[in-house]
Formats: sequence, structure tokens, C-alpha cells
Amino acid sequence: MKGIRQLAEHLAISIGTVSRALNGRPDVNEETRRRVLAAAEALGYVANQSGRSLRQGETKVIGLMIESSAEAVENADNFFLGVTSGLQHVFTRHKLDLLMLPCPSDEDPCEYLKRMVARRVVDAMIISNMQRVDRRVDLLSRARIPFIAVGRSLSAGNFPWIDLDFEGVAERAVERLVARGHRRIAITAPSSEVNLGYVFVESYRRALEQHGLPFDPSLVIRVKSSEQGGYQAAHELLLLEDRPTAVILIYELMAIGLYRRLMESGVLPGRDLAVIGFRDAPRARFLQPSLSCFRMSLYDLGVALGQMLLARMPAYREFYSEAGGNMIWPLELVAGESDAFQLTEA
Amino acid sequence: MKGIRQLAEHLAISIGTVSRALNGRPDVNEETRRRVLAAAEALGYVANQSGRSLRQGETKVIGLMIESSAEAVENADNFFLGVTSGLQHVFTRHKLDLLMLPCPSDEDPCEYLKRMVARRVVDAMIISNMQRVDRRVDLLSRARIPFIAVGRSLSAGNFPWIDLDFEGVAERAVERLVARGHRRIAITAPSSEVNLGYVFVESYRRALEQHGLPFDPSLVIRVKSSEQGGYQAAHELLLLEDRPTAVILIYELMAIGLYRRLMESGVLPGRDLAVIGFRDAPRARFLQPSLSCFRMSLYDLGVALGQMLLARMPAYREFYSEAGGNMIWPLELVAGESDAFQLTEA
Repeated sequence: MKGIRQLAEHLAISIGTVSRALNGRPDVNEETRRRVLAAAEALGYVANQSGRSLRQGETKVIGLMIESSAEAVENADNFFLGVTSGLQHVFTRHKLDLLMLPCPSDEDPCEYLKRMVARRVVDAMIISNMQRVDRRVDLLSRARIPFIAVGRSLSAGNFPWIDLDFEGVAERAVERLVARGHRRIAITAPSSEVNLGYVFVESYRRALEQHGLPFDPSLVIRVKSSEQGGYQAAHELLLLEDRPTAVILIYELMAIGLYRRLMESGVLPGRDLAVIGFRDAPRARFLQPSLSCFRMSLYDLGVALGQMLLARMPAYREFYSEAGGNMIWPLELVAGESDAFQLTEA
Repeated sequence: MKGIRQLAEHLAISIGTVSRALNGRPDVNEETRRRVLAAAEALGYVANQSGRSLRQGETKVIGLMIESSAEAVENADNFFLGVTSGLQHVFTRHKLDLLMLPCPSDEDPCEYLKRMVARRVVDAMIISNMQRVDRRVDLLSRARIPFIAVGRSLSAGNFPWIDLDFEGVAERAVERLVARGHRRIAITAPSSEVNLGYVFVESYRRALEQHGLPFDPSLVIRVKSSEQGGYQAAHELLLLEDRPTAVILIYELMAIGLYRRLMESGVLPGRDLAVIGFRDAPRARFLQPSLSCFRMSLYDLGVALGQMLLARMPAYREFYSEAGGNMIWPLELVAGESDAFQLTEA
């Protein structure tokens, strides 16, 4: 493995020029850059990134923390792979790279993050799966690591986040179902302490209130955010004494398990029960009857997250002065057949 | 943000002891370690990891390179999230962390890897999605970065890899179908240059030969490894003049799209067409009739990859002397209903 000195000697040009070429600086002509890179490859040169970090105090790497929990694995949540493309689109302009930090399922997310911060592999962080009380907000604030959260939290402090429009989804779903004659509308909610569960159920409660409908806690079905959770939700729903005529799902893949369980009992979505899903997922597009659900661009969300994060970093702030501090991300209704019937009173 | 000196002063113990406690060294008693970690958190201490890397020449981080391609995103391939748990199980013992390096879809994987190597964020690499000719093998070898590949490649050099048993899958699938009277057996293959496609088709060709069946290139249907690819495969299959009576899929999620397209034409898997899937996926479990497919433990594969990689790293070699250089990973047949019929000659 060769260092920069050997590389400069081999090319008979100055170390400074080699360094500027390797670092992609604009004050090196293209021909020289190509020569340097070709020689670097031929000689097996590896930049001493650690040295550079010490001098510049930065790694040029942004971390995205995800959970490698059993649930996430079982259900292949592609949410973050989708967001990744949008993030990379923004980061590439500044020669920043994105790394994903998968927190092991048996480790406390805050302890994990603490260790990753100590490793100093990243200049800034994107955190997700926000809990109702999330100690990571405090940890990153105190360590002065620029960060942005995908999701809100009750945790103290004014921190930057983008969250999906759970309020709007609950509101429009309830409105749509009420207009079709539904009065008993069930909802699914996550069984964990994730903050979005609280936001979604509260929004649903308020939407019912707006239409003069009572909030019945037995219609809030708490299950895992997975296909299996959807199966379980349908099972519980079918057992309810005064069975609801509609259900709103909080997680896209629940629809697959829910359809299956309903059909096993001869209950047809879109005829016997109105179903509205959450996010439009490629897999859910294969469902029949087609699922009414809400659509959003993961790529665009990634772009917005990337810009808002860079707006918090001194080196990039000037380029993103427009990026605000928080944002509710809109979703657009995609009408399907799963709720396309008018309820006639029995 | 406090440094180690302030931390030591605050606790009135030596910098050396604080350093050993923070680095998880065994020669510090548990009580002291707890005091140091508590103070580190309270004071917002962040270790100077970059400094440590320079001195120790290591980052204690292992990278897993994945592709954030449109195809991967669309289909939420959970393969690597599954493998991650097994890798982490091994790495945690040695206080190593795993980072995922998502290569942008519009970037050449070798150029991307070159940059990540230059960034020096990782001590070792796991690469995947091996191409028939894969320049990354050469790059990592020359840079002397320990690495392991998920998958084989024709690329020169003796490098460590673990690959799935595509030969065994093709052999057993063909054998099973032949025993049920099938003579015209189609196969799906990826439309890209990924090496596993070549291995799978070649294994299928040999398996046919063993049963005295001719190889008909029109029965090799090249599509994307996705649900949509499965839909497309069924479409092409239905258009074939001398329609095959069985099909073997190379990718687990293809089955979902394939089923859908077949059923649109009134062709029932397990009655009108025998279908054998590849890897058992949670989502495919919801298919009816149930899919005959092959099962493997992603977790166990992750453990094996982790051990084989550490066996290549001087600091950990002694613990993993048993780990070999290459391995074909077995898959176990799970018999379903999708091929459970005896073909009677028309």
C-alpha cells in the first residue's frame, strides 16, 4: 500500500498537486487529475483518511441509523432504502457519503448511538423510529452532532424533524368512510412505544369527533406493524361483537395479511368491509380488490431530509438557507376498490 | 464537548485509567468503568476516534456494501437486513461495529468502493451482488483490505466467498419435477450480469442433461429479479407455443407476480403449472396454493460470513482458525402445494 509521497515521486509532480487531485479540488486540471487517479489505482494507493479527519475535523460521511430488529427483517421494510436515493442525490453534490448504521435488535438504541458517536465515523446523523421519549435527541444535542429526525418525539428541545402527515391521513380516511355511511370505523396502531402510534390514534380520535362520532377504545387494534400484524388485526376485528364496517391501517404491509385473514372467513374487502391502507407499497399493488391508500415519494422525502440536515452544518449552511426546521410530509390519496361501496344500514 | 483530560480531572483518576475504561479494556474494574461512562455521558464526552485510528491503524468498523438500486428499493430485498443480525452477533464479541455502505444506483460499484476505501472508515469489507467479472476483488486485494464476498465471480485470484447452493437448488428442483412427469421445465434468470444467473442456468442445464432432457434456450426466461419480473415471466411463459408444464424461479418475490399473472389467465399454480420458488420469504408464505421453495437461515449465513472475514484479519485470526476459505451454503427444500400434482400426458 503506497502513500501520497510515493505517488508524487512516481508521477514526478508535487505532493500538493497530488493531494488536490485526490481530494477532487477544482484547481487541478482534468488531465492531471486523471493521471493521478490512474496511478493511485495502479499503485494501490489508499488515502490516509484518518489523518485528514484529524486535520479537517470532518469525515465527509453522514450516518443514517436504522433498526435491524426481527420485525424490520421479517417484513423487509423498504422505507429507508427508498429514502437513501434521495439523500444520496443531495449528498453527492458535496462529495459526502451516506452510511447506514444498523442498530442490533438486542441493543438499546441510545447506547448504540453513543458508541457510534464516539467512533467519530460520521459528521452528522439522521435518526428514525422516534420513540415517544427519545434520549437520542438529548445525546446528539449535547455532543453537538448535527442531526435530523424522521419523526417527532415528545422529547424536550427544539430539534429538526420531518414527519409524515398522520393527521391528514387519519382525517381524510375518516371523512371518506363517513361519507360512505360508515359509523363504526376501526384503526390499527403499533404495539410499541413508537411516537407515530400516539400521533395517529390521537388524529383518528379528533377526526371522529369532527364528525360527531364517539371514540371506542375497542376499535383501536394494537398489533405489530407487519403482514402478520395485519393478519392478527383482521382476526381480532372479526371477533368483535359489534363488528366495525371499516378499518384504517397504519402500515402498508398489514393489508396483505389482513386481506388473507378476511378472505379465509369469506369477508371480502371492498364489499363486506371497507379497508384503507397507509402508504402505497409496490407489493400492495398486487392486492385484489385494489387497496385505497396514500402515496408519497420516498425519494423526495430523502432529498428534503438531506437538505434540512445540511442546513444545520456550518460547511453547507449557505447552500440551504431555505430549508426550514420542521416539516409535515404530505401524502396523496390513491382511491382503490377496497372502500368503494356505500354502506346501507341493516 | 469535553475531552479525555477534562474527564480525568473531573473524576480525579488518571487519563490512562479513563482511557482503558472507555475502550472497554478488561484491566479496569467494573465500578470504575461505570463511573467513567456515567461521567462521560453527563459531560457530553466524545472520544477522539480519529486520533485512535491513527495510532492503532484501525477503526473497529466493518463495512457491508449493498446496492441502493431502483430494483432493490422497489422490491425491498430484505436479504441483507437478515444477514446483518448474524454478522453483528459475531462482531459484537470483538466490539466491532457493522456499517452498511449503500452504493448509489447511478455510480459504478468499483468507483464507489474505491472512494470508501480511501475514506478509511472501515477495517474490512463484505461485498455482495458479485458480477461475472468483478473489479472490486482486485481493488480490495491490492489495497490489502481484508474482505469476503457473498457470491462467486469469475474474477481472477483466490478470494474468500460464501455462495448459495444454486447447483443443489437447480438439481433438486429438476429432479422433483421430472419425478412428477414434467419434461418441459422453464427457468427464470436475471437480466443482468450478476454471476449467480450464470451459475443457476448452467446448473439447470446440467440437471436436465442428467435426466436425458434437452436444453431449450427458449425456456430460459430473462427478467428482473422482482415481483414485476415474476409477472413478466408468467406473461412470456403463457405466450410460448409449446408451453412448459413447470417453472423454477430464481428469486423469491417473483412468485407473487407470477401467481398474479397466471391467475389472471385462469392458470392455477399447482394444478395447471408446477411452480418451485427459490428462497423461502415471509411474504411468499401468504401465497395460495402454498409455494414449494428452498429455505435457509440468513442469520446463520451472517454468522459464517462474519467468522470467515475475521479469520482473514490478523487481530482476530486466532479465534477463527477453523473458518475455511470458501463455502457453498446449503438450502433445504420446503414442499408446498404449488408443484404437488402428477403430470398426466395429454
